Amino acid sequence: MPNNWQELIADKKRRQQESIPKEWIVQIPPDDVLDVTDVPRECGLLTAKELEITELDDVPLLLKKLASAEWSAVEVTTAFAKRAIVAHQLTNCLTEIFIDRALARAAWLDEQLKTTGKVVGPLHGLPVSLKDQICIKGLETVMGYASWIGKYSEKDSVLTEILYDCGAVLYVRTNVPQTLMYPETYNLVFGRTLNPRNRTLACGGSSGGEGALIALRGSPLGVGSDLGGSVRIPASYNGLYGLRPGYNRVPYEGTLNTQEGEDSLPSVLGPLCRDLGGIKVFIQSVASSKPWFRDPLVIRMPWLEDEYKLVEHGSGNKLSFGLLWNDGLVVPHPPIIRALEMTKKALLAAGHEVVDWKPYKHDELYDIVRAMWTAAGDEDYRAVTSLSGEPLLQNMEDYVEGATGALYLSDKAMTVYQLWQIQKKRIALRKEYLDYWQSSVKLTSTGRPVDAIISPSAFYASHPHGKNAGADYTMIWNCLDYTALVFPVTQVDTTLDQPKPPHEFLSEKDKAIYNLYDSPETYKNAPVSLQLVGRTLEEEAVIKMTEIVAAALKADS
Amino acid sequence: MPNNWQELIADKKRRQQESIPKEWIVQIPPDDVLDVTDVPRECGLLTAKELEITELDDVPLLLKKLASAEWSAVEVTTAFAKRAIVAHQLTNCLTEIFIDRALARAAWLDEQLKTTGKVVGPLHGLPVSLKDQICIKGLETVMGYASWIGKYSEKDSVLTEILYDCGAVLYVRTNVPQTLMYPETYNLVFGRTLNPRNRTLACGGSSGGEGALIALRGSPLGVGSDLGGSVRIPASYNGLYGLRPGYNRVPYEGTLNTQEGEDSLPSVLGPLCRDLGGIKVFIQSVASSKPWFRDPLVIRMPWLEDEYKLVEHGSGNKLSFGLLWNDGLVVPHPPIIRALEMTKKALLAAGHEVVDWKPYKHDELYDIVRAMWTAAGDEDYRAVTSLSGEPLLQNMEDYVEGATGALYLSDKAMTVYQLWQIQKKRIALRKEYLDYWQSSVKLTSTGRPVDAIISPSAFYASHPHGKNAGADYTMIWNCLDYTALVFPVTQVDTTLDQPKPPHEFLSEKDKAIYNLYDSPETYKNAPVSLQLVGRTLEEEAVIKMTEIVAAALKADS
Repeated sequence: MPNNWQELIADKKRRQQESIPKEWIVQIPPDDVLDVTDVPRECGLLTAKELEITELDDVPLLLKKLASAEWSAVEVTTAFAKRAIVAHQLTNCLTEIFIDRALARAAWLDEQLKTTGKVVGPLHGLPVSLKDQICIKGLETVMGYASWIGKYSEKDSVLTEILYDCGAVLYVRTNVPQTLMYPETYNLVFGRTLNPRNRTLACGGSSGGEGALIALRGSPLGVGSDLGGSVRIPASYNGLYGLRPGYNRVPYEGTLNTQEGEDSLPSVLGPLCRDLGGIKVFIQSVASSKPWFRDPLVIRMPWLEDEYKLVEHGSGNKLSFGLLWNDGLVVPHPPIIRALEMTKKALLAAGHEVVDWKPYKHDELYDIVRAMWTAAGDEDYRAVTSLSGEPLLQNMEDYVEGATGALYLSDKAMTVYQLWQIQKKRIALRKEYLDYWQSSVKLTSTGRPVDAIISPSAFYASHPHGKNAGADYTMIWNCLDYTALVFPVTQVDTTLDQPKPPHEFLSEKDKAIYNLYDSPETYKNAPVSLQLVGRTLEEEAVIKMTEIVAAALKADS
Repeated sequence: MPNNWQELIADKKRRQQESIPKEWIVQIPPDDVLDVTDVPRECGLLTAKELEITELDDVPLLLKKLASAEWSAVEVTTAFAKRAIVAHQLTNCLTEIFIDRALARAAWLDEQLKTTGKVVGPLHGLPVSLKDQICIKGLETVMGYASWIGKYSEKDSVLTEILYDCGAVLYVRTNVPQTLMYPETYNLVFGRTLNPRNRTLACGGSSGGEGALIALRGSPLGVGSDLGGSVRIPASYNGLYGLRPGYNRVPYEGTLNTQEGEDSLPSVLGPLCRDLGGIKVFIQSVASSKPWFRDPLVIRMPWLEDEYKLVEHGSGNKLSFGLLWNDGLVVPHPPIIRALEMTKKALLAAGHEVVDWKPYKHDELYDIVRAMWTAAGDEDYRAVTSLSGEPLLQNMEDYVEGATGALYLSDKAMTVYQLWQIQKKRIALRKEYLDYWQSSVKLTSTGRPVDAIISPSAFYASHPHGKNAGADYTMIWNCLDYTALVFPVTQVDTTLDQPKPPHEFLSEKDKAIYNLYDSPETYKNAPVSLQLVGRTLEEEAVIKMTEIVAAALKADS
C-alpha cells in the first residue's frame, strides 16, 4: 500500500498558498475573535466600490449593473476575488484558487459586451463559486482526498459548460469533508473550515466551504451538492438561502462524487446565495439551457413560469403551511423553536394559514437513508484512500493517529437482494407520504392540501466542531425527493434562547441533543434558519413560496 | 418446502374455466390450422353489430360513438368480451376473466351518460385489457406463479384507479411468462399463449397475452409492461402498435412485478393497440390525470401538445431519420431487412430524409442490462417459487420434470459495490450515446440531429415456441431510457423473404440467428414490425412521428 499522503498534502498546500495573490494577504484577528464577519470590510484591502459591489446582496440587480456595463466584469470579479481571499484567511474555505483565469475571462466578457452590445448570457459577468466536486477543465478536483491530489480534469462538467455559456465567471472552488458524508467540513488535505459568525462553530457540510465563503460575501452565488442536506445544512448554519432541487433537474454529469454509482438516493446540485433572487436566476438559467441535451439524466423540463406564479397554489393569495415542530424523535434547540414561532406569527399576520404538521414515519425513512448510504459498507472510501495510504476519517474530530471515536461510516455491506428490499420499502413509504400529504386537504381552509411544509433544517443553529449528530431534518426530504429551500430567520439571542427545563425525552438521541445545548453562549451569533418543503420537482413554486415567507418575516420584524 | 403447486394450479384452472360464460364456448379449429385470425368473424358467436364494433380499429372513433351514445357501453363491452373469450379459446391468452363485473360497470356508465349528459371521462365505455400484473381490487394477481394463486388485491393499482376515473371498463387480464423475464409467454399455471397468425410461433412476451388478444381484436386497447421489450416484442410479433414510454411517465404504483426493488433499470407500463389513435389517447388521458398526485415516482409532466406538434422537430415538415440496419452483432432475418427497405423508400417518397445509423457500443449496453437484471442472481424467483414448491423454469420450452436446457436465468449475485460500478458505467454510456446522437447534426440537412431512429424490434418476425434468443433490439432503448414505439410494416412473404446466402458472421449469435431462418414457411403469415426511437420522455413527439411514418408507409403501399 502506498503511503505518500503527507507528501502529497504538503505539495498541494504549497501550491494552494502560491495561488493566493501575495498583496491580498491581510492581518487576521487572533483565534479568540469569534465573529469575523466585519473583517472583510475593515481590513483595508477592498476599495469602497469593491465593498459596494460585494455588499449589494442582490444578484438580479448585480446582473443588471453588469449587463448595462455600469460595473465591468473585471471590477466585479476583482471585488469578489479579493473578498474570497480574505474569507479564506479567516475560515479556510477555499480549495482551488484561479484568479488569473477568472480575470482573463472577465476581460473577455467585458470585450464581448463592448463589441456586440449584448451579454453572453443571463449570468454575464457573475462570479460563481463551486464546491470542490464540480470539474473544471485543467484544474484538479481533490474533494478532500489526498489520493486525488493531481487528478486534473480533462473536461468541464456539464454545469460548468452551462455556467460558461450563461456568461458566469468561475474563480474559486470550496472545501468539503473527506467522503462528503458529514454535515461539517474537515479533511486531511485542506483542514477545517470555520463558521464566520462564530469560529468555534461548524460551518456545516458537506458544502461547508460555500457556506462560509458566501456568508462573508466572498461569492455572490455558489453551487453545492445535496445528498442528505449538504447544500441546506451549510446554508442553515450560515444564514443563507440554499436550495435542494429534485432529482435530475440540475445536471450532475461530469461532477465527481462520493460512492459513485450509488443511485438509490442520488445527490443533486443546488445553489446557495444571500438573496432569493440569486436562487431563482440560477435555476431559471440552468433549466432554460436545455440541459437534457447534455446530461442524459436531466428531465426534459424547462423553467415553468406558471408554476412560479403558483397557479396550482391559488396564485399564492392565501397559502396553507404545515408546520413541523419536531420529527417525533428529537426536539430541536430553543433558537429553532423560536424561529418556528416567529415564522408562524409572520405568516398569520400576512393572511396565510398555518396548521400543525404531524411527522409521518421519520424513523423508518431515516433507517432507509442510512441503509442506502451504507449498502456497500466502506468499500468506496477504502478504494480511494488506499491509493495514497491516507487514513479514512471516522468522524469530524481533529485527526490524531491511533485515536478512536464514534464510528460514523459503516463497514458492513448488504447483498443486492437486500438492497432491493430496502428500495422497495422506500417506494412504499414515498407512496404513503404522498397520500398523507394529499389527505391534508382535511386540515386546510383552501380546498387544497397544504401548499408547503415548514420544517427545522437541523437540530441546532450549528454545533461545536466535531459534534455533529447527523442530518435527520434534511435527509428525510432527500429520501422523499421533495424540493426544499433553507431560509434565514434570526440569530441566536443569548437572552431569549435560554435552555429549557428537560422535557420527557423522545429518544436517547433527543436527550443527547438536549444536553448539547449547555448554554446559548456556546452558540452566540449563530444564524437560525428553517426550510420550506414542497413537492417533487416543484422548484419554481418552492422559490416563490419562500419569497412569500421571507417577505412575511421581514414585514413582521 | 411446500409442494402443493399442482393442486393450486388445478384449482385455479377450474375457477378460470368457470369464469367463461358457457354459451360463449365455440368450435375451434384443429391445431394444424395455423392462422386463426378469421375465426372470431366466422365462428358465429358475434352478431353483425358486434363484428362492426370490434373491427372498427379506431379507438378515437370508438370513443366518439360511445360518448354520443350511438353505441352503448354495454354493447361495446359485450362485443369485446365475447371476442376475447373466442381469442382465449384460440390462443390461451387470458388469465383473469370478470365479464359480470365489467357489464355492471358498463351499465352504470350508460346510466351516467343518460342522466348527466356527460361522459365520466375521456375513456368512457372503452374496454381495456391489462397484463396480469396490474392489480384490481378483489381479484387475484397470479403473474404466472402457482405461489401467487389466491393472492387477492386489497386495492386497485394507481393505473387501475385512473382508468376507472377516465371511464374505462376492465374485463380481462392477460397471460405472461413465469418471472416475466422472457420475450415469449409460457408458465406452469396458465400454459402457453400462441400467436394467432401462426400458432406454431411465439406471441412474444412478456406482455404476450395482450399481443394475441389485441391481434384477434378481443380488446381495443391493452396495457403491458416493458423492462426490456415486454410491450414492444408482443406488439411486434402480432402486428400492433406498442409504446414503451420513458421511466416514470405512466404510474407503476400498486402494480406487482418481478424482482421488485430492482430500480437500476425500471420497468414501465405502456399501451398496445391496433391503431395509433389508441396509443395517443391512452398517454394523453393518463398524463392529464395528474398521476404524480397518486404515484410518488411519476414526473410532474402533463400532456405536452407542443411536443406532439413537433415544435422542436421543424413541425414535422421534413424529418430526418437514422436507420439502424443492424446492431453490429446480429443481422436480422430477411423480412426485417425488407421492412427497413420499405420504410426507407416510403419516407423518402414522403419527402423526409433517411441516413444510415451506425450502432454505438450495443455490446457494452447489452452487458450492462444483463448485469443489472442478474445482480441478485435468482434470489427473487427462488423466494417466490419456493412458497409453493413450483419449479423455476430455466427456459421457455415445454416443462418436463428433470429436463435441462439452456439456462436463461443466472444464479450468480454480485455485491452492492459491484452493482454501483455497473450503474456508474451505464450513466457514462448514456452520456456517450447522448453526445453521439447530438453529433448527428453533421449527418442531416435539417440543422437538427436526427429526429428519431428507426430500428428493428427483434432479430425476427417471431420464432417457434421456446426458441427465443433474447431481447437485444428492444432492451438497448430501455438501458438508454429512450421512448420507443413499435409499428407494423408488412408480413412474412414466402416468395420475397427467401433465405439469403450466409454472410460473414458478426458473432456466434449472428450465426445461430441466421440458422434459425431455415425457411420462410416456418414464419408464414407472421407480422413484420419495426420501432421508432425518440429521446427520453419524448412520448408526444414519438407518437406523432410514428403517425408520420405510418402515413408514409400507407401512401407508398
